Amino acid sequence: MAENSGKGILIVCDGLGDLREKGKTPLQAAKTPNMDRLAEHGACGLMHTIGRGIIPGSDTAHLQLFGYSTEKYYTGRGTFEALGVGIELEEGDVAFRCNFATVDEKMKILDRRAGRISTSFAKKLEQDFQNIEIDGAKVIFKASVEHRGALVLRGKGLSHKVGDTDPHSLTRLLVSKPLEGTPEAKKTAKILNEFTKLSHEKLNSNPLNEGRELPANILLSRGPGIFSKAPPMEEKFGIRSACVAGGALYKGVAKFVGMDILKVKGATGAKDTDLNSKADAVVSALNEYDFVFLHIKATDSFSHDGDFGGKKKFIEKIDSEVLPKLMETGANIMITGDHTTPCRIGDHSSHPTPFLMNGELVRHDDIKKFDEFSCANGSLGHLFGKDVMNMMVSLMGKAHIYGA
Amino acid sequence: MAENSGKGILIVCDGLGDLREKGKTPLQAAKTPNMDRLAEHGACGLMHTIGRGIIPGSDTAHLQLFGYSTEKYYTGRGTFEALGVGIELEEGDVAFRCNFATVDEKMKILDRRAGRISTSFAKKLEQDFQNIEIDGAKVIFKASVEHRGALVLRGKGLSHKVGDTDPHSLTRLLVSKPLEGTPEAKKTAKILNEFTKLSHEKLNSNPLNEGRELPANILLSRGPGIFSKAPPMEEKFGIRSACVAGGALYKGVAKFVGMDILKVKGATGAKDTDLNSKADAVVSALNEYDFVFLHIKATDSFSHDGDFGGKKKFIEKIDSEVLPKLMETGANIMITGDHTTPCRIGDHSSHPTPFLMNGELVRHDDIKKFDEFSCANGSLGHLFGKDVMNMMVSLMGKAHIYGA
Repeated sequence: MAENSGKGILIVCDGLGDLREKGKTPLQAAKTPNMDRLAEHGACGLMHTIGRGIIPGSDTAHLQLFGYSTEKYYTGRGTFEALGVGIELEEGDVAFRCNFATVDEKMKILDRRAGRISTSFAKKLEQDFQNIEIDGAKVIFKASVEHRGALVLRGKGLSHKVGDTDPHSLTRLLVSKPLEGTPEAKKTAKILNEFTKLSHEKLNSNPLNEGRELPANILLSRGPGIFSKAPPMEEKFGIRSACVAGGALYKGVAKFVGMDILKVKGATGAKDTDLNSKADAVVSALNEYDFVFLHIKATDSFSHDGDFGGKKKFIEKIDSEVLPKLMETGANIMITGDHTTPCRIGDHSSHPTPFLMNGELVRHDDIKKFDEFSCANGSLGHLFGKDVMNMMVSLMGKAHIYGA
Repeated sequence: MAENSGKGILIVCDGLGDLREKGKTPLQAAKTPNMDRLAEHGACGLMHTIGRGIIPGSDTAHLQLFGYSTEKYYTGRGTFEALGVGIELEEGDVAFRCNFATVDEKMKILDRRAGRISTSFAKKLEQDFQNIEIDGAKVIFKASVEHRGALVLRGKGLSHKVGDTDPHSLTRLLVSKPLEGTPEAKKTAKILNEFTKLSHEKLNSNPLNEGRELPANILLSRGPGIFSKAPPMEEKFGIRSACVAGGALYKGVAKFVGMDILKVKGATGAKDTDLNSKADAVVSALNEYDFVFLHIKATDSFSHDGDFGGKKKFIEKIDSEVLPKLMETGANIMITGDHTTPCRIGDHSSHPTPFLMNGELVRHDDIKKFDEFSCANGSLGHLFGKDVMNMMVSLMGKAHIYGA
């Protein structure tokens, strides 16, 4: 057996799948000799991350891909954002995604991103939110990238069944309401509303905002989730695993399942990400870990922008900058997306995503190209996100017999 | 409709699936005109006995194939071994697989098989274990083939959550420990330890062992399961069913689901089994039963020994000795494995197993060869073990509409 034949790399090109435009999908139009070589000596199929006809979110998609049932473990995105920005969550913490925004004196939103403030400016504003306690609950806020951040409420008797304060449009700030009749939901909504008011008081009087046309004068919250510990991958699959990703959410889900999050220079989670640096990080991680998850975001960003040509070129970049390095390692490799994002829709869709796996124990088929249509004829047929890690651990020779 | 078109035969060639060596799997390399004819006039697919990426055990695989969820019905292999050697189990019985072994005076294992004693010798030693009761629990031991046997503890308040006494290696005998903090587990571990000690006292002083270099002087136990009755196949599927098998385990699972176990001369569950005799037994069973399960073990044994050529030849033997007789009956026929056992791994793997079905109601496809790669293009796609009996009962015209 080759060196690293007991190791595995899962490459998720976010929003990879697409629909045809002028007869081809971006993946079909792209020149991808390395992906095609992996397909030729591997096996292909189409993957439904959650289920047929279900449009995956980025959070739910990754949970399923890592083998963690969303029904059991998903309560809301806030949890993963908070973990992703580096907050250590405790059992029962309620977490939200946040935006710095601009409101007028009547609490009408003028800009949901406060003029898309810089990351460094947001970090300075974050100082306003130290040592806050409301109604016995500890309040933790951490800024992440640009106007984004995460808010955590920690205390006894909290609930994630509360409404957003973010109206998702340029209307009046919402008052968070309990979404169920429990004292926990009522208490949490009250705390969130008080915190939102406090954020306005503090930010509006913060000298850093002086003179700004769109002052970052409030924190909007959405996507509450309640944290509950999951068994780490090491326990569930018996493998040591690491994550190479730019975006906070992907790091957050990886953290949730117990992966070590590697710091990678130039991994921005954006179109300008340093793919070479990420590939190097994966290769060197194989010395220490059994399994490495590599997340590449830009394929999805181009899709959201409806940029077919950009997506095609970026796929070619992945093929030429990332794959040769990873293929040299001799590790088992899987390539897929977390979902399909067709450029002409500009949003996630439920179409299955192309999937390939390559490794010494793969029973390879006669598919020679990696794309949505070749994969439809692959020997793996239609698989589901929940299968992926079981298949990977099997390929790595680290699965145990179920039964005797 | 032909005679027997309402009847069904499920042929399980144990460990049938494989990987390519020099470009072909044993099933591809074998000349199998009858299997190919069944495929040509039938439909093919790939079957995951438990789930994608899950390596099936022999016990769990057969439970699923018979339509009995392992989550609901599987607690451990001991149950099926005990049923297989002919012990009538009662609700709450805790059963173990046993080995006659050799220990020295310090309880260190010298041979886990006591020099692989003969079946007849073991039958004589079995006499040492009549009418034993420990702590109010009745103890039943029955020898099966060579050094193997099954142990049953019967009484109130027992648990299968106890550790093995068999260390699975040439080290010191293990003391069984309760695996949970319940009084039931503590009590059962205590009884098992006392029985193990007793087995040593009795066997060590048994004159039959005198002069043997490796005396069969202890019973090692492993794989505890607790028995709980399942609804028989006749109730679940409305069919009368019979089992033609050599190995105790397969008979045990068949018995568990309420099949009648047919006595077949020359069915050894080994490479020397009499395939003609087994085929005759299936044909004659069709007079009395709706459904016959035929288990053939040797394909798996050759795989475990890494004997590609032996596996290939044995597949050809199945094709020429078993199939013509069964095909003449006009019954619906399914052929598959319980799992894949690649010769080059020498153990079970999670690769799906080739599956074919043939019968008057089969919507046949254009697959003309029965092997892992042709089946990947079959019209049945990827199916699961749990589907098999429902499909069979449907083919037999004995399924009922679900709903109205």
